[in-house]
Amino acid sequence: MTVDLNGLARRVAEELARADQMPYRPDGGGGLATVPIAPKHSKAPVAAGVTYVRDQARIADFIDHTLLKAEATRGEVEKLCAEAKDQRFAAVCVNPVWVTLCSDLLAGSQVKIATVIGFPLGASHSEIKAAEAALAVRHGADEVDMVAAIGHIKSGDWQHVAADIGAVVKSAAGRVVKVIIESAALSPVEIIKASALAREAGAQYVKTSTGFHAAGGASAEAVALMRLAVGDALGVKASGGVRDCETALKMIASGATRIGTSSGVAMAQCLGRGPLPLGELLAGPDRHAGQCATGVCSSAEKAGQSY
Amino acid sequence: MTVDLNGLARRVAEELARADQMPYRPDGGGGLATVPIAPKHSKAPVAAGVTYVRDQARIADFIDHTLLKAEATRGEVEKLCAEAKDQRFAAVCVNPVWVTLCSDLLAGSQVKIATVIGFPLGASHSEIKAAEAALAVRHGADEVDMVAAIGHIKSGDWQHVAADIGAVVKSAAGRVVKVIIESAALSPVEIIKASALAREAGAQYVKTSTGFHAAGGASAEAVALMRLAVGDALGVKASGGVRDCETALKMIASGATRIGTSSGVAMAQCLGRGPLPLGELLAGPDRHAGQCATGVCSSAEKAGQSY
Repeated sequence: MTVDLNGLARRVAEELARADQMPYRPDGGGGLATVPIAPKHSKAPVAAGVTYVRDQARIADFIDHTLLKAEATRGEVEKLCAEAKDQRFAAVCVNPVWVTLCSDLLAGSQVKIATVIGFPLGASHSEIKAAEAALAVRHGADEVDMVAAIGHIKSGDWQHVAADIGAVVKSAAGRVVKVIIESAALSPVEIIKASALAREAGAQYVKTSTGFHAAGGASAEAVALMRLAVGDALGVKASGGVRDCETALKMIASGATRIGTSSGVAMAQCLGRGPLPLGELLAGPDRHAGQCATGVCSSAEKAGQSY
Repeated sequence: MTVDLNGLARRVAEELARADQMPYRPDGGGGLATVPIAPKHSKAPVAAGVTYVRDQARIADFIDHTLLKAEATRGEVEKLCAEAKDQRFAAVCVNPVWVTLCSDLLAGSQVKIATVIGFPLGASHSEIKAAEAALAVRHGADEVDMVAAIGHIKSGDWQHVAADIGAVVKSAAGRVVKVIIESAALSPVEIIKASALAREAGAQYVKTSTGFHAAGGASAEAVALMRLAVGDALGVKASGGVRDCETALKMIASGATRIGTSSGVAMAQCLGRGPLPLGELLAGPDRHAGQCATGVCSSAEKAGQSY
C-alpha cells in the first residue's frame, strides 16, 4: 500500500486548525474534546463495526471486559464470560488460546469476543499476525485487537506499519480490527501518523495501549489526539490503567468509544446498569469521585491492577 | 503426547534425595548447585544444541545479547549485532520481525540468532507458535525461545502444555528450542513439572523468564530447581533482571548455562574477554562486587532496565 504521508499531515493540520476554533459542546457535535453522541432519532449511517456513543448508553456498552495476563486460568476465563453476560458488556477481551472457550460460553449472547494479535509487543511478522487473526476468526472472534509494528513506527518505516495493519485487516475478513499503537511510547506526531495510517489501512478502531508497557497506559491527551486523527470514521479504545469511573469518563469525554479494563464490574456497580446521564457526567468527570456510591473511585481502587 | 506425571514426580523425588547427599564441588561433577563443567580433555558426548559451561569459558560464551522491547528500532538492532560480533557473544536475542536483518548482519560470524515465540504471554495458539517458529527458522533463526502456555500450567492442563511445546519443537526442525516457563509466576512444583515436561517434549533448554512479567525475572532458586528437574540433559537459561556480573555468576553457580541480558557488554568489560577463573568466581559470587574493575556491579547498574 502506498501511503501519502504528506496528504495525511496536511489534513491533520487542517483539522487541528479547525478544532482550535470549536467550542466544547457536551451535548454532542464535533470538536476535539467532545464525544460524538448521535442526536436523538438520528438517521445518520454508522460505519460498520464501530460502536459510537449512543443515546441512552450504559457504562457497560463501553466496556471490553479484559483478562490478558499470561497466567489467567480456564476458571478465570469462565468467570469473565459469566460476568460479561450478566452485565451485558460490549465484549470480552482474552488471549487467542481462550477464544474457542469464550465462543462456547457466550453462544447466543450479545457479548462480542475480542482477542489480541501480536500481543503485546507487535514485533512478530505480519504473516504471523495475519495467520493469528485468521485463526481467531475461525475460532469465533468478532474483534481482533492487533498491536502495530511499534519498532517500525519508531524507525520511521511507515510502509511496513501500513502493510502490517493491512495484512491483518485482510485476514480478519470483515471482523472489527482495533490497532493498538502503544501511545505512551510514542511522540504526539507518531500517535497522529499511526492513527491516520490505521484508518487508511481499513481498521475500525485505534486503541491506546496494551496495558503491558513500562511507559504506561491510556492518557486523555492521547485519546484526544487519536480521535482527532481518525475523525468520526473510527472508534477509539482507551485501555491500560483505566481502573475507575472517573478515569473512564475522562477517556469518554476525550473521544473514547470503548474502554478496555478489568474493572468493568466495579464501574457498573458504581455508575449503575441503566442509561447514563452522559452529558452531565462528561461535563465534569472530576466531580464523579465525590458522588461515587460504591467507593470504587477511591485511591485504593486506583492502586489495583491495570489489565 | 501422553505424559507420565507420576513417573516424572518419582524421578524428581529420587534426584532430590540424591542431590541432598552430594557435596558442593565447584570444580565440576553433578549436584544441585554445581555447574556441569566438563573435565579437561573430556570425551563425553554433548547433547545436540546444548552449550555446557566449558573449560576456558569466557563470560561472553554465556551471553544471549538481548533486545526485546516493543519500540526497538532498526538502528538499535544493528548496534546489537555489531556488539555481539565484537564481543563474540553466544547469541543475539531479538523479536521475530528482526530475524532477517540479524541474519544478514551476522552472516559468517559465530554468533547465533535467537528469537522469541508466543512472546511474552505464551497465550497464542500452538498452531500459531509453530508457524512463528517455522518462519523464524526460514528467516535464519538458530534458536527459538518459546513461551510455554503459562495459563494452562496454572490450570493444571499439562497435556496442553506438553503438546504446545511439542508443536514448536517439531516445527523448529532441529534448531535449539528454549522453553520459557515464567518461573516467578509459578510455584516450585509447577517449575519442576514444567521443566521436566520441556525435557520430555524434546526442548534443549528451559529458560526462567520473559523479563516482562510483573512478578519478576530470574532467581537463583528457580535456576537450581530447573537444573535439578532437567538434570544434565538440557541447558538452563537465566533471564530477566540479570543486570550485573554478581547476579550472572550466581545464576551460573546455580546451574545456568546461558544468560539472557541487555547488560552483556558491561559484564564483559567487568570480567574481561579472556577465560574466566570460574572455579574461584563461582565459589563466591558475592565477593566479585568488591573486585569489580568497572563499577558495573554497583547498585546504580542494578537499577537499570532488565531487558
